[in-house]
Amino acid sequence: MIRVEQSTNLKAKPPQGELGFGKYFTDHMFMLDYEASQGWHDARIVPYQPLTLDPAAKVFHYGQTIFEGLKAYHGSDGRVRLFRPEANIARMNRSNVRMSVPELDSELFLAALERLIEVDAAWIPSEPGTSLYIRPFVIATQALLGVAPSEQYQFAIIMSPVGAYYPEGINPVRIFVESEHVRASVGGVGEAKTAGNYAATFMSQQTAKESGYTQVMWLDSAQHRYIEEVGSMNVFFCIDGKVCTPALSGSILAGVTRSSIIQLLESWGIEVLERAITIEEVYEAGRAGLLEESFGTGTAAVVSPIGELCWRGEQLLIGDGRTGALSKRLYDTLTGIQYGTVEDRFGWMRETGLQGIIRSDIME
Amino acid sequence: MIRVEQSTNLKAKPPQGELGFGKYFTDHMFMLDYEASQGWHDARIVPYQPLTLDPAAKVFHYGQTIFEGLKAYHGSDGRVRLFRPEANIARMNRSNVRMSVPELDSELFLAALERLIEVDAAWIPSEPGTSLYIRPFVIATQALLGVAPSEQYQFAIIMSPVGAYYPEGINPVRIFVESEHVRASVGGVGEAKTAGNYAATFMSQQTAKESGYTQVMWLDSAQHRYIEEVGSMNVFFCIDGKVCTPALSGSILAGVTRSSIIQLLESWGIEVLERAITIEEVYEAGRAGLLEESFGTGTAAVVSPIGELCWRGEQLLIGDGRTGALSKRLYDTLTGIQYGTVEDRFGWMRETGLQGIIRSDIME
Repeated sequence: MIRVEQSTNLKAKPPQGELGFGKYFTDHMFMLDYEASQGWHDARIVPYQPLTLDPAAKVFHYGQTIFEGLKAYHGSDGRVRLFRPEANIARMNRSNVRMSVPELDSELFLAALERLIEVDAAWIPSEPGTSLYIRPFVIATQALLGVAPSEQYQFAIIMSPVGAYYPEGINPVRIFVESEHVRASVGGVGEAKTAGNYAATFMSQQTAKESGYTQVMWLDSAQHRYIEEVGSMNVFFCIDGKVCTPALSGSILAGVTRSSIIQLLESWGIEVLERAITIEEVYEAGRAGLLEESFGTGTAAVVSPIGELCWRGEQLLIGDGRTGALSKRLYDTLTGIQYGTVEDRFGWMRETGLQGIIRSDIME
Repeated sequence: MIRVEQSTNLKAKPPQGELGFGKYFTDHMFMLDYEASQGWHDARIVPYQPLTLDPAAKVFHYGQTIFEGLKAYHGSDGRVRLFRPEANIARMNRSNVRMSVPELDSELFLAALERLIEVDAAWIPSEPGTSLYIRPFVIATQALLGVAPSEQYQFAIIMSPVGAYYPEGINPVRIFVESEHVRASVGGVGEAKTAGNYAATFMSQQTAKESGYTQVMWLDSAQHRYIEEVGSMNVFFCIDGKVCTPALSGSILAGVTRSSIIQLLESWGIEVLERAITIEEVYEAGRAGLLEESFGTGTAAVVSPIGELCWRGEQLLIGDGRTGALSKRLYDTLTGIQYGTVEDRFGWMRETGLQGIIRSDIME
């Protein structure tokens, strides 16, 4: 069902210590085409190669595109596992519906992920904290400038070996609370993992960086009060012994890591309130000494502790700017599950049947 | 300064009666590259050709892209003119700033437009109502998955001969007022002509079409009350002898046609109020018999009369569903200026120095 064309010109693999994020790509990619008359067809794994598109292709003009991000891990036992691929596949199809893109066959999608990882198994890094980042995406390819959904699409999966997010250990970040620009609004496409949501954040992100902040915290578009996301992560707060996170209102992404963190906390008997959270509430709790911890969650960082906020010029230190105990426990447990050192009681890890290769001989 | 590589394989030109919109493209395109170290460079006109991009190019994943749309007209006197290209160039650079894309040199941009039209002059259609639609666009090309602005871009201009928007005369459309989904919000990127703003409208547009409506009217994201745009056009209302249009709040596009219509009306002694307009106000005026006309404005249609609205299930007929006198006068005057049959007292038409070719021999 999936045709495989092996690359005859394998690339040199980069040293594991220099991987970074999304800089290097493996030898192969998966591709699938869509035509209104044929549906999705021609599933194939081919050598990693440029996409050749008409300059009038709708992706360039009207932004009809969706992506996902997930990881394969070289476990401590040498086995290669995917983290919750079914959740990413389901979310991609929800995004497809919102963006008027034809849905993908979930079984074919999963088979494509597994087959591509098998073909490029030598690219899965083995050093602690490294992983194989997988980027499925769909783009509208019809060469027609009418403002309407495309009748042609390409779906592709590319993969990138990525380095440890915290090479020197988990570390809190400083966050700038954006009170003018917004990322998305209820009724818009903030819940879909579509390209335009990301470009929309660049200006604020740059301004924050220039002021020494790592990321931006987004507030709601209507009142600039309700907390939405942090950078491209979901966000959690521990206030006076209780954990809360913004509810899925329609304008924020339903993070796979977010849902995993909620399940983990609940398995520990810690209730998580998914609710509306205002920035005022967080600041009041902080000023009263009741804001114990805060952290972002996402595929790249897994858990990213927040050490400091800056909102309307007022800085708020969280937990003395150090990584909180709960943040650390969540990070250790979830990465432990991902690397196979902590029991996976949730059925999150999908065995690929592959045995990873210790690549220190080639990659170092 | 602009290198020209002539195509040696000229395409057959389609019959003028079958042009449609954005389906056919001319023999050449303009291209310009950006590298952080070199700035914008390598201005060239080359044969119309596919773009070859790494699958990790940021345009596919993070949607950092901007476009413009303007037209060249074969005048009734045979001379070829551009409509307000400086306005589109200025807006493109405003969009660039919002989307963290390096600004373009306005003089080079204008020179590129004029040189490309000259090279492909044989593609400017001559039949009444036809024009040469010009689509400048910029895309982020760096192959890197980090969520940050690209360090590499391509700017291109493609051109498409387009048919008469109203082959059977100007005609009112039926509009569905969207009260759930939104296009953009204040603080977001609705004011920028960026791809993601368009894909965000497809779902509502499809729903409206399935119910027999041509386009969607967008309301503000915060209260779903304030009128923003119609489809991808600005919108005007004539209520009780007064003309109004939504003010440029930050979430709507600053249309070049919109500003031209305002200037035209003011030159006729008709004041235009740029202000907040609620859908309730429009309905109340309609029920009271005071909503005389409504129309959309944009580069494609110029003026598009609105004959009927549907909001929360309530239909509202405007001017008995017929084209209003003011809409017709505006359409006739503005298209007259564009085709050179009405005096251009505003200095809108930019002479290209080209003599158009009557192509009925080849194109029919």
